Amino acid sequence: MKELLQKIKQMNNPTVAGLDPVLSYIPTYILEKAEKEHGKTFKAAAEAILEFNKGLMDALCDIVPAVKPQSAYYEMYGLEGIRAYYETIKYAKEKGFYVIADGKRNDIGSTSDAYATAYLGKTQLFGEADRAFEPDSLTVNPYLGSDGILPFVKRCEEFDKGIFVLVKTSNPSSGELQDLVLDGEEIYVKVAKMVNKWGESTINDLGYSSVGAVVGATYPEQSKKLRAIMPNTVFLVPGYGAQGGTAKDIAHLFDKDGMGAVVNSSRGIMCAYQKAGADGEAFAEFARKEAIRMKEDITSVF
Amino acid sequence: MKELLQKIKQMNNPTVAGLDPVLSYIPTYILEKAEKEHGKTFKAAAEAILEFNKGLMDALCDIVPAVKPQSAYYEMYGLEGIRAYYETIKYAKEKGFYVIADGKRNDIGSTSDAYATAYLGKTQLFGEADRAFEPDSLTVNPYLGSDGILPFVKRCEEFDKGIFVLVKTSNPSSGELQDLVLDGEEIYVKVAKMVNKWGESTINDLGYSSVGAVVGATYPEQSKKLRAIMPNTVFLVPGYGAQGGTAKDIAHLFDKDGMGAVVNSSRGIMCAYQKAGADGEAFAEFARKEAIRMKEDITSVF
Repeated sequence: MKELLQKIKQMNNPTVAGLDPVLSYIPTYILEKAEKEHGKTFKAAAEAILEFNKGLMDALCDIVPAVKPQSAYYEMYGLEGIRAYYETIKYAKEKGFYVIADGKRNDIGSTSDAYATAYLGKTQLFGEADRAFEPDSLTVNPYLGSDGILPFVKRCEEFDKGIFVLVKTSNPSSGELQDLVLDGEEIYVKVAKMVNKWGESTINDLGYSSVGAVVGATYPEQSKKLRAIMPNTVFLVPGYGAQGGTAKDIAHLFDKDGMGAVVNSSRGIMCAYQKAGADGEAFAEFARKEAIRMKEDITSVF
Repeated sequence: MKELLQKIKQMNNPTVAGLDPVLSYIPTYILEKAEKEHGKTFKAAAEAILEFNKGLMDALCDIVPAVKPQSAYYEMYGLEGIRAYYETIKYAKEKGFYVIADGKRNDIGSTSDAYATAYLGKTQLFGEADRAFEPDSLTVNPYLGSDGILPFVKRCEEFDKGIFVLVKTSNPSSGELQDLVLDGEEIYVKVAKMVNKWGESTINDLGYSSVGAVVGATYPEQSKKLRAIMPNTVFLVPGYGAQGGTAKDIAHLFDKDGMGAVVNSSRGIMCAYQKAGADGEAFAEFARKEAIRMKEDITSVF
C-alpha cells in the first residue's frame, strides 16, 4: 500500500483508471481488426481488449499512478478473457502502474487462503513457488467475517501487498444490508471498525495500513463518517463521474498531503472519445485528456 | 434448479461432491507423472488436477447428482488452473452432473451483469453469442443488495439456471456480521427474506425457486429457523463431515420427499483414500465408497 501512496504523491494524482473493457467501449477499428484475424470468437474479443488496454496504459502511465482491471469483464470472455486479464496486469506492471485487481473475492478461511495465494502470494508448485497473478492488491468482500479476511492480511504482511475491503459500496441498493442500524451503528460502520482491526498490524510509516476500504463517492455523508472512523485506512473510491459522484463529494477523504484515498474512473476515461464524439483512432488521446481533467478536478478541492 | 432436484430424486441422493483440488490431496503417482511431463509448472499442477477430477467424476457419476468446483483452488494455479476449471466443468456436464460453480461472485449491478453473463448467460461476440463457462448455477454474495443480485436472477429466468446466495455460512467467524441482530432479526434472517423475494418469480412446479441459499451444516439452530423462513428455497449445505456437521444436524432441511437441500462434501470424498491410509491408486474407489456412505448416512435421517 505504501507504494501506491508514494506513486500518488510523486504524480500528485490520487486516481486510478478502471479497466472494465466492455466491447462496446472499444473503437471499431480495433474490433474489426480482431474479428478479421480471429473470427467471432473469445480470442478476437481478448485481442481487442488487450490492444485497447495497452493503448490506454501507454497514454496514461506518466500521469496516472494505478489501474484497476475488473475481473468480471474478463471472465465473461472465458479463458481467453482471463488471459487478457493476466496480460493486462503484466503489462501494467511493466509500465510502472500500481495494480488493483478488482475481484471482490471472499470465502471461508481455507478457501480465502487459496484466493490470497492466487492474487497476493505465491503458489506452491512441487517444492517451488510462483505467482499465479501479479497484482499489488485485491478487493475483497467481508460478509464471512474475520476468518475470510485474515488469510489476505497475512499475504499483505508477508509479500507487502494490499487489500480493499468492501465497506460502503457505490451502487443504489448498497444500503439494503450496509445501512441497517443496530445499537445505533450501521453495518458499514461495524465493518469499518473491523477494517481498522484487520489493518492494525500493517500500518506503514506514512500512517496507513495495508487493509484499505472501498467507499463509494456516491454517499458523501457516509464517507465523511467513515473517514473519521478509519483514520489509517486508504479509501478506494468508485462512483466518481459516470455514477454521479463529484470532486466536492470526496474532498473530505484526503489528508492534508492529498493522500489517503484513490478515486476510480472507468467509463469516464475509457469512453472519453465516445463522449466527445471523436474518432476511435483518438481514444488514447481523449483518455489522457480526461485523466488530466479528472486529476485537476480532484486536486482542486484539496 | 429443477434439473438438480430431479437428479437428486432419481438418484435418491441429495449430495454434491466438492472439487477443491489442493495438490496435497492428489495421489503421488498423478503428481509425479505431471511433474515429469511438464516440470514444476502451473501446467503440471493443472494436468494433475484434471486427471484427479476426472477420476473422481468417473467414479461418482452414477451415484452423485452434482459437483461443485470451487474457483479459488483453480485460480491459484493461474491461467492453467482456470483452464482446468473450465475443462472440469465441461467434463462434468458430459458425465451428466449438475454443476455448481462456487465463485461467491458479487459486485454492483453493471458488473454483476458481466459475472452473470460469464457463468449463467451468453456473451455477445461480434453479433453472435457463446457461453464463457458452462455451469448450471453459481454461488453469489449478497453484501451489495438487490442490484448486485438481480442480474443473476435475470439469467436464471432466461437460461433456466440457478444461484445460491450466501445466507449463513459454515465458517467459525460467520456470525461476526451475519448474526448481528436488529429489530429482533439477525442479518442472516434479513438476507433470507431477500432471497425469498429475489426467487419469487422463479418458483418451479416442484415448489422451489431458482434462487437457492448457502446455509452451513455447522449451525443447526440457525438452519432450522432458515428452513421455516425460506420454504421454497433449495439449500446448498457446506460443512458436513470435515467441518463438523452431521446428518442429524441437517435432517430438518429436507422436505417429505427428501428434497429441498443438497449437502456438500469436498475433503471427505477427495481425501477418503488418505483417511483410510490406502494407496493413491485407489483414490477413486475410496471416493466412491465415501460417497455411498455419505448418501446412506444422510438419507437415513429422512
